[in-house]
Amino acid sequence: MKQQMAMQVVNGVDVSKLKGTIEAIKGTPSLADFRFRIVNKWQGGGLNQTTVKASYGAGQEFPERDGKFTMQADEPPILLSKDEAANPVEHLLHALAACVTTTMVYHAAARGIPLEAVESQLEGELDLHGFLGLDPKVRKGFKSISLSVRLSGPLSEAQKQEIVNLGPGFSPVYDMVSNPVPITVTLAP
Amino acid sequence: MKQQMAMQVVNGVDVSKLKGTIEAIKGTPSLADFRFRIVNKWQGGGLNQTTVKASYGAGQEFPERDGKFTMQADEPPILLSKDEAANPVEHLLHALAACVTTTMVYHAAARGIPLEAVESQLEGELDLHGFLGLDPKVRKGFKSISLSVRLSGPLSEAQKQEIVNLGPGFSPVYDMVSNPVPITVTLAP
Repeated sequence: MKQQMAMQVVNGVDVSKLKGTIEAIKGTPSLADFRFRIVNKWQGGGLNQTTVKASYGAGQEFPERDGKFTMQADEPPILLSKDEAANPVEHLLHALAACVTTTMVYHAAARGIPLEAVESQLEGELDLHGFLGLDPKVRKGFKSISLSVRLSGPLSEAQKQEIVNLGPGFSPVYDMVSNPVPITVTLAP
Repeated sequence: MKQQMAMQVVNGVDVSKLKGTIEAIKGTPSLADFRFRIVNKWQGGGLNQTTVKASYGAGQEFPERDGKFTMQADEPPILLSKDEAANPVEHLLHALAACVTTTMVYHAAARGIPLEAVESQLEGELDLHGFLGLDPKVRKGFKSISLSVRLSGPLSEAQKQEIVNLGPGFSPVYDMVSNPVPITVTLAP
């Protein structure tokens, strides 16, 4: 049984484990509850650094992830800082691209569809009137995002379109950017 | 004049330049148009890598940023990958924290309010029934995000509250997570 499970790897995803996860959640729905946590510290000007904290999921804490990853953000000189890292809206595009890609890869794996390459190009358009408070009718964030995906593999055009649709269909970050998420902001004492 | 301008730095932000930017945009509104771009490539399983591309803003392209920054994303073993980088939803939290922090820092600087430290803790709650397609009523992304900000500096409680409110008030990523952004997804030939 174990040998058979080990062979069901598609796109680098162990489909046996994926199906096991699905069955486990069907049996115990609370296993689907996940929590992801970070801490961010300002480092002066437009520079700041995030540290990933322990996460929670499938009924357990994962303390070994506490402090494992750090990411910085900065702004380029035209936006008054030193360009030591990608800026926050570029990180949002990264989160979106990464999530759509992983969603396509995992859901294609679950369908037994092998992929050879996935590459996406993203662009977001922003009008600084919003951030600067110069026009309350102009939104602060991107007015729109374009996401172009190139897929390679033994795929028909219909299959490629099916896989591309899995991104908008199931990606958590796509959901969070295209639909509202409630954010509670509090001032810590 | 230059000396005077060089001295107007608050929170590491050159407030003279910030005000110059605002005046320039008031005179030529198209200078406020910015475009940010990335490319993301799948690297197998849950791992993929983003490269920041040239950006556009204030009427000019910035080719020197093309390829300057790369960021990876992965998933932990419980989500069927090798945990070689923060995952996409953690990157979204990073983008949000970074943007809210930079927004508070810049807008406080514009108001002449000095900050000594800014630290934020974020948590997002996610129900995997959404991503896995087990329940169409469950959203794919975080059902909610909590963001707790600690501010240090010579600030009254009222000033701290004023600064914390600048995040939701002006942050581009806060806007994009709390409000819908139109995303156009296309399959590249």
